[in-house]
Amino acid sequence: MGSQSDWPTMREAADMLDQLGVAYEKRIVSAHRTPDRLWDYGKGAAARGLQVIIAGAGGAAHLPGMMASKTRLPVIGVPVQTKALAGVDSLYSILQMPRGYPVATMAIGGAGAANAGLMAAGILALQDADLAARLDAWRAALSASIPEEPVDE
Amino acid sequence: MGSQSDWPTMREAADMLDQLGVAYEKRIVSAHRTPDRLWDYGKGAAARGLQVIIAGAGGAAHLPGMMASKTRLPVIGVPVQTKALAGVDSLYSILQMPRGYPVATMAIGGAGAANAGLMAAGILALQDADLAARLDAWRAALSASIPEEPVDE
Amino acid sequence: MGSQSDWPTMREAADMLDQLGVAYEKRIVSAHRTPDRLWDYGKGAAARGLQVIIAGAGGAAHLPGMMASKTRLPVIGVPVQTKALAGVDSLYSILQMPRGYPVATMAIGGAGAANAGLMAAGILALQDADLAARLDAWRAALSASIPEEPVDE
Amino acid sequence: MGSQSDWPTMREAADMLDQLGVAYEKRIVSAHRTPDRLWDYGKGAAARGLQVIIAGAGGAAHLPGMMASKTRLPVIGVPVQTKALAGVDSLYSILQMPRGYPVATMAIGGAGAANAGLMAAGILALQDADLAARLDAWRAALSASIPEEPVDE
Amino acid sequence: MGSQSDWPTMREAADMLDQLGVAYEKRIVSAHRTPDRLWDYGKGAAARGLQVIIAGAGGAAHLPGMMASKTRLPVIGVPVQTKALAGVDSLYSILQMPRGYPVATMAIGGAGAANAGLMAAGILALQDADLAARLDAWRAALSASIPEEPVDE
Amino acid sequence: MGSQSDWPTMREAADMLDQLGVAYEKRIVSAHRTPDRLWDYGKGAAARGLQVIIAGAGGAAHLPGMMASKTRLPVIGVPVQTKALAGVDSLYSILQMPRGYPVATMAIGGAGAANAGLMAAGILALQDADLAARLDAWRAALSASIPEEPVDE
Amino acid sequence: MGSQSDWPTMREAADMLDQLGVAYEKRIVSAHRTPDRLWDYGKGAAARGLQVIIAGAGGAAHLPGMMASKTRLPVIGVPVQTKALAGVDSLYSILQMPRGYPVATMAIGGAGAANAGLMAAGILALQDADLAARLDAWRAALSASIPEEPVDE
Amino acid sequence: MGSQSDWPTMREAADMLDQLGVAYEKRIVSAHRTPDRLWDYGKGAAARGLQVIIAGAGGAAHLPGMMASKTRLPVIGVPVQTKALAGVDSLYSILQMPRGYPVATMAIGGAGAANAGLMAAGILALQDADLAARLDAWRAALSASIPEEPVDE
Repeated sequence: MGSQSDWPTMREAADMLDQLGVAYEKRIVSAHRTPDRLWDYGKGAAARGLQVIIAGAGGAAHLPGMMASKTRLPVIGVPVQTKALAGVDSLYSILQMPRGYPVATMAIGGAGAANAGLMAAGILALQDADLAARLDAWRAALSASIPEEPVDE
Repeated sequence: MGSQSDWPTMREAADMLDQLGVAYEKRIVSAHRTPDRLWDYGKGAAARGLQVIIAGAGGAAHLPGMMASKTRLPVIGVPVQTKALAGVDSLYSILQMPRGYPVATMAIGGAGAANAGLMAAGILALQDADLAARLDAWRAALSASIPEEPVDE
Repeated sequence: MGSQSDWPTMREAADMLDQLGVAYEKRIVSAHRTPDRLWDYGKGAAARGLQVIIAGAGGAAHLPGMMASKTRLPVIGVPVQTKALAGVDSLYSILQMPRGYPVATMAIGGAGAANAGLMAAGILALQDADLAARLDAWRAALSASIPEEPVDE
Repeated sequence: MGSQSDWPTMREAADMLDQLGVAYEKRIVSAHRTPDRLWDYGKGAAARGLQVIIAGAGGAAHLPGMMASKTRLPVIGVPVQTKALAGVDSLYSILQMPRGYPVATMAIGGAGAANAGLMAAGILALQDADLAARLDAWRAALSASIPEEPVDE
Repeated sequence: MGSQSDWPTMREAADMLDQLGVAYEKRIVSAHRTPDRLWDYGKGAAARGLQVIIAGAGGAAHLPGMMASKTRLPVIGVPVQTKALAGVDSLYSILQMPRGYPVATMAIGGAGAANAGLMAAGILALQDADLAARLDAWRAALSASIPEEPVDE
Repeated sequence: MGSQSDWPTMREAADMLDQLGVAYEKRIVSAHRTPDRLWDYGKGAAARGLQVIIAGAGGAAHLPGMMASKTRLPVIGVPVQTKALAGVDSLYSILQMPRGYPVATMAIGGAGAANAGLMAAGILALQDADLAARLDAWRAALSASIPEEPVDE
Repeated sequence: MGSQSDWPTMREAADMLDQLGVAYEKRIVSAHRTPDRLWDYGKGAAARGLQVIIAGAGGAAHLPGMMASKTRLPVIGVPVQTKALAGVDSLYSILQMPRGYPVATMAIGGAGAANAGLMAAGILALQDADLAARLDAWRAALSASIPEEPVDE
Repeated sequence: MGSQSDWPTMREAADMLDQLGVAYEKRIVSAHRTPDRLWDYGKGAAARGLQVIIAGAGGAAHLPGMMASKTRLPVIGVPVQTKALAGVDSLYSILQMPRGYPVATMAIGGAGAANAGLMAAGILALQDADLAARLDAWRAALSASIPEEPVDE
């Protein structure tokens, strides 16, 4: 993620990966404040054996797209909600990538971060039947948890 | 895709997969007009050996999200540009998925469709070293094609 | 409705139906988490004698449109207000249906839910003179309740 | 509708009603230019035996909401696309009705007008089994018309 | 204004008129809940000797435009801020009037209401030299009140 | 107006004033390119006997608001439609004036310019019974011109 | 800045200049309430030896653009966040300047104000090697402050 | 600029610099396609004696902000107009930079590019009295070119 301040959002991705038993590392890599760290991270990612990168950022959110420029690995982008523009600035900065450098953009905010974890798991499950089974079970449990009728709170 | 009218956009995804040597099938599956086709397609996708689904749609674009509801396979969504709302309606309908059902959303329109092809290739390349090499070559060729200076046209 | 979390909004529809003496059932049917429940509900609705369906949902709000795809009964959609995009995402996902599958979209949030109840009553009143009279009385009472001048609070 | 200039859009509603064999009258009733005509139309509508009113308008589109204020009959609103604001002005003026006066809002432009015809037919079909059958047939034909694969044009 | 709930906003117009010594009446006239009151108010306004009408409303804000349809007197519209759409719905419903029926639209919310009072005073001052002098004095006092430098609070 | 390029829009205001027999002068006064002309125009306007100022501008449209800062005369603002932002930039720059300096904002583009002429006429008609009669006649003729039914073109 | 109420935002510019050891003056200059002060400030700025002007304002934010009209000095504009429109009104009023009068627009709100201080320092550093060194040091310190991993708070 | 396709927009910056007699180099540096070129350009810019960098880009426009991350020189950003989102995506990607890395953002499209040239000239004129004089003359000529009255075309 781009900043410590993105952690409350991005933790939902980490929590999801924990639930699904997917190993990951978490790093602060700021596109603007630590561009060389971004460079090195992106360039070395495939060689280090990473398979998917989840990148969350807010405002002029350049981290996901610049990461996609530096690696062929799938990059999943999470637009962090912002104060003035509610995350639409983050969204457009992540989504509107030019031909050649896709970023798999998720919903704005925490739901998007959680879904980034699920998307990463879905990609990894293509090569990992156990993970596929855990993902199927997670999905089935979610469906089963929905009651038939609403209740007053 | 959701409609024949989406084909001029979605063909860019097909062209990209052709360039990268990735096999695919193309189907019209309308969330609203052929919901049972969507159901069957989604439910059977993993068992048939499909690995990634690219779904493009416009307006109240329910195809990508409903597909994600029916399969654990990674679903890539392409918001087709629309007449009145320029594709922002398509974008919000595809992007803002609730926790549990991610859609990897691409940019609005043709660039997004082309990138959907690239994203699919990037996912498949995790298990296919030849494809990874072709993708690296494609990316290197794109970078090499950029001239140093603009020219008057 | 799509989720227990929509109930504080959708309860305003139920309250309105209660006030107008219209019988109804309330169900949680999630387009993404319980798609088969949606399928069954939509397919069986007309045969079970339902006359109007009110569907509220937020974000990538696919419930109303998918329900309209599965039944010829009038479907009334209520866009639930969301955190980042204030319900504009819900609105566009519900409103912008393609030719063939109308959803009668109401205002965003609680006022829209209450109006969904009134719209359902207005439709049913076409065949029910007593309900028409109750609806007329409700409208007359609302008009009569408006004071001539504002008061400081 | 509010103006002769709305006719190219609203004709799609008329065409749909023709296809489905639903009788209707078409009138220009401008909220601002002919307010008394609107008053008389709204007040007399139920007594004259009208069952559903479709109202299309653009810009500060007050016709649908004012009509809903004058009659308990279901009012379906069609936001006509506009030049500067693409119909978002029409949409907000029609959609955001206060508690008490619902307008069943359709998509912006021609698709919305066609769907207004379908929505009206769906409401009338609750009391007309023949119309219900024609509507079912229309929907089945639409579904059946969708090819399996896109074709280059 | 359209509702008691608009009074916290519209009171700023009344306060401004009080400050400037302009006589006025304040009425709740709801376009949708009391349409006949609106009709009568608009039709009789010029004959009763009213000179300017300030109309504030929120959401599908039809009061200012419908009033402009019923009287040739200048109508000043104030878009009341709303919950989901921040008053942009009110703004578009008031502003985007068709050729023939202008509404002098003010800023969204309280500043707009205060300015509606000033605009009304500016119009009346064309025929009232004393009011013109009071308005000049009010403007001079506002300018004189601006300090040279900001202070920490 | 702020520029020769605004004339195709603002001519509709002039045409309306011509139709209603209202005398006027037309000037190009650019807030940014001729600020001193704006200053002199605003400061001298009341003393020269002007009664109403119509100011149209596009983009960062500062002319109407700066004019309102320099004169107590009523200022009517017309947001000229722009290429990238469709006139929303013009609108916000004209509409969102702070407490103290109202601008009577009209609809975006040509309809707004025509209505600016009508609003000016409505203001002047408060002191001119003949103009009031002409304005009433103009309004009656507009209402009478509306046909009962649409015609195919 | 345009108002005392802008000071909580604009203080971040002052704090940044303090940190970087750049001398400045701070003034309230309201485009609408003190237009002559704006005139004098702009006209005299270059002659007085000022080098860069930072102007923050909200709503119909005319201060930065009008200042740019009166001086050839670089003007940096800060859009202050607003209540209804979140600062998008401020942004469009500052950004969308016509050919001839650029305003260097910063992000909405406090981050934009801080960056205005940095931009001013960057401009001055072109002629001041000591300041350039301090700016380099400030940037290096910011980069160095970014931890490798997020921490739970 | 980021692409040959940006040249029709960015040429307006070059033309302006030509008019004002400011030397410059023009380069295509794509943030995503040639990231290393961007790195080298940014890192070496100050040492090579460059003074100001104008960067134009469209969509997820990362070039200006990434350049600002790599150099302390003033970076001026031009949002290129885009097809679906009219340049609002470009704008938000350029404007909403975090604390530490300002980009002097110009208006969307050609006017913004021309103004980027003027802003660069204004910055350089702080150290170049001849350029300051040429800039003053250019501004005076622009003001003098504005006619008093519009003409029909």
